[in-house]
Amino acid sequence: MKTKALLAATAVLALAGAAQAQDLAAGAAAARDRALGDQTAWTVLESLTTEVGPRPVGTPAMDRARDWGVAKLKELGFQNVKVERFTTPTWTRQGIDTAEVISPYPQPLHILALGRSASTPPGGLTGEIALFRSYQQFLNQPESSLRGKIAVVTQVMAKTQDISGYANINAQRSRGAAEAARRGAIGYMMRSLSTDDTRLPHTGGGADGGIPSVALSKPDADLLERMVARGKPVTVRINAQSTTNQASTAYNISGEIPGTTDEVIVLGGHLDSWDPGTGAIDDGAGIAITTAAAKLATAGGGRPRRTIRVVMWGSEEQGGSSAAYAAAHKDELSKIVVVGESDDGPEAVYNAALPKGADAHPAMKAFRLALAPLGIVNDLTPATNGGSDVSAMVRAGAPVVEFRNSVLRYMDLHHSADDTLDKVDPKNLSQNVAVWAAFLHTVAYSDIDFRKLAAAAPADAPDVFSRR
Amino acid sequence: MKTKALLAATAVLALAGAAQAQDLAAGAAAARDRALGDQTAWTVLESLTTEVGPRPVGTPAMDRARDWGVAKLKELGFQNVKVERFTTPTWTRQGIDTAEVISPYPQPLHILALGRSASTPPGGLTGEIALFRSYQQFLNQPESSLRGKIAVVTQVMAKTQDISGYANINAQRSRGAAEAARRGAIGYMMRSLSTDDTRLPHTGGGADGGIPSVALSKPDADLLERMVARGKPVTVRINAQSTTNQASTAYNISGEIPGTTDEVIVLGGHLDSWDPGTGAIDDGAGIAITTAAAKLATAGGGRPRRTIRVVMWGSEEQGGSSAAYAAAHKDELSKIVVVGESDDGPEAVYNAALPKGADAHPAMKAFRLALAPLGIVNDLTPATNGGSDVSAMVRAGAPVVEFRNSVLRYMDLHHSADDTLDKVDPKNLSQNVAVWAAFLHTVAYSDIDFRKLAAAAPADAPDVFSRR
Repeated sequence: MKTKALLAATAVLALAGAAQAQDLAAGAAAARDRALGDQTAWTVLESLTTEVGPRPVGTPAMDRARDWGVAKLKELGFQNVKVERFTTPTWTRQGIDTAEVISPYPQPLHILALGRSASTPPGGLTGEIALFRSYQQFLNQPESSLRGKIAVVTQVMAKTQDISGYANINAQRSRGAAEAARRGAIGYMMRSLSTDDTRLPHTGGGADGGIPSVALSKPDADLLERMVARGKPVTVRINAQSTTNQASTAYNISGEIPGTTDEVIVLGGHLDSWDPGTGAIDDGAGIAITTAAAKLATAGGGRPRRTIRVVMWGSEEQGGSSAAYAAAHKDELSKIVVVGESDDGPEAVYNAALPKGADAHPAMKAFRLALAPLGIVNDLTPATNGGSDVSAMVRAGAPVVEFRNSVLRYMDLHHSADDTLDKVDPKNLSQNVAVWAAFLHTVAYSDIDFRKLAAAAPADAPDVFSRR
Repeated sequence: MKTKALLAATAVLALAGAAQAQDLAAGAAAARDRALGDQTAWTVLESLTTEVGPRPVGTPAMDRARDWGVAKLKELGFQNVKVERFTTPTWTRQGIDTAEVISPYPQPLHILALGRSASTPPGGLTGEIALFRSYQQFLNQPESSLRGKIAVVTQVMAKTQDISGYANINAQRSRGAAEAARRGAIGYMMRSLSTDDTRLPHTGGGADGGIPSVALSKPDADLLERMVARGKPVTVRINAQSTTNQASTAYNISGEIPGTTDEVIVLGGHLDSWDPGTGAIDDGAGIAITTAAAKLATAGGGRPRRTIRVVMWGSEEQGGSSAAYAAAHKDELSKIVVVGESDDGPEAVYNAALPKGADAHPAMKAFRLALAPLGIVNDLTPATNGGSDVSAMVRAGAPVVEFRNSVLRYMDLHHSADDTLDKVDPKNLSQNVAVWAAFLHTVAYSDIDFRKLAAAAPADAPDVFSRR
């Protein structure tokens, strides 16, 4: 009798589970299809890029962006709209960065100073260049060997669908200035981390060398290579002014679709941008995708079990928002079901990785079912990263999801003046919203416990692909 | 006997003609093949863009370009290298042109002043914009209707293989400023004449309205359209300084491969460029193509019958070199066999048009034979234009040839900072050299008389294509 009752109870639970999974699958598919036919993300992105434009942290534009974010969340019906202040060091470009070859062939160069670059003297910094076509060749130079020189590194970034092309060369920007300074250089120039061929340089953070440090456009890096190949000394002048503020005010802004429990799903994008473009792909797109997805995930299903909280992080490019957010929310960490960020642009998602151990759960099976028409690799290697702004929460133990975007076009535009709305394909934008909406639906309307599933999972992750 | 002797003599002449045609065909094919395997044009273009770069007429860079041109012609073995001075009005940008939306949504705009634009006051010119998405809609505005406004015209250029996309919209640049001024506008902004989507504006001549007149990049024109669509007044500030000089010194530079007669073939490109790019495609390519072609046309054939003269015209972008050249050479006009210019960039030639009545001549049949492997439409409509710098000679009666380049990519880059060496495909560059070399060979080693053939030709030209 006891066994029989247990079996019966299990059967009832299994039936209930099957019914729930069926509801989730239908709900996820419906959320996906709403997203594919919806304009919300485009409208949000068009509004942000038109009415705010570039919004570097620590500038008045960021204050306008904050006000825009609050108004937009309220307008879209989000509740508990909050502005969480924090302070962070910021670097701000002053005026227009210029550079030129002085000799032997006077020509202008198109540059942008990198974040944290030191200012040049008001009239500019002049020096002979020492050019390296490989970052490793540059690192091979002994200390003091570049004394009085402007170091130039022109290694070319690989064009890859995933982020590996960028990751592989990132040190050229994030470490190059410090390495140049350590070798006695008075300035640092590098080929932009870019896969395009326009005359627009790409900025970015990390030039913590205490010397003026700038990115060259692709044609300008080529030009310096050709000049150096002629064997005569090449002298360059750089003029780039900037200011730093050790304690700027910044903001993490959030809004919620409340659930019936105290559990929370935290996702979003970052509201700040670099200054040359309008922050359409980086990361207006992430703001637009996650905001629209939260709305569409719940549009047809009544009040969800979990709260969906969309966050517009306020200082990704120069850092600070991730730590500030994790610190402010450390007491609710155990209630955070899963975190995620959309910050690799609006090209199609081509790969989806879930938290460890979650793939076999009915809710995630329902989610994977919904992805079938969207052309996405079901990656069985667990997600580990999720994005800069959720990294502090992930390190503190929050489960994380990753929807990976193709960056083939993104890396043509990233951190340059070409980061503009016209580069965004509305169809791809909708595909992104569909992925997030389907995921949010299955998590918000289920009781899936990612922490428990991870704890029960075998230590070794399976291979991502079977190639046999 | 008399008749018999005449027939015999005619037969001998016909045989001689056939032999000459066969030699020409073989010579043209050999010139073509030399060109396809040769690096001269690339080397010349690499040298000009690296060692000189931007070279607007009326600036010290043009003096460096002149010295470069003289040295390069001598280095390549050209004889009678000459510098012909002339004076012409010039317009020169001073500093970096900037613009921004002041209200309702403060954002920077990427602009470049157009040639002949008036300077703004030192602090900039501020005004409310009146935006027209069609040039005709703008022209439909009555006089004085734009009083105190900055007129903005954002019509989009068509992307076409031939030059019709540019020709169709050229008035937006060459006439727009004057039309805006006539309607009382205090400034004029226009969407760049461009088929690309980068944030780089495209400059160009013709802004003779007496008001500040600038080109917007594509994303910036889009941005103003989106702001205006919101219905609030949009105020913009433009800051663009320039100087004009009514009598700058300019130079037409030439070198020759001497022939055995006093007849001359005149061809070339223009040495001056606009300032934002390095003048690689406009018109370093034309300089490189024609210089290399002259060398390769004669490399295997001994001294030609006609002199081949390569000219580096010195003020195409701002005008003046065509009239100066025609005036300086009016006394030799009857000795000029044919003129031509390469000034539509280095993409493949897809269409070749010969002087009127010339197609049936054995020399031109030999030339057409040589084109067969190069993928070129044999256009039977006679050439009428040939390029800005030969237009004055053509008007004076010189026969003209036209080798038309695809401009599908050219119009992405034209007159912008993106006019750089890396945009040039060496294979296409060689194809251009091959076309010109084959043509020069057949004309220089024959006695084809284009004037006589034109006079004997029927008045109506045949249709260019049979589509049946």
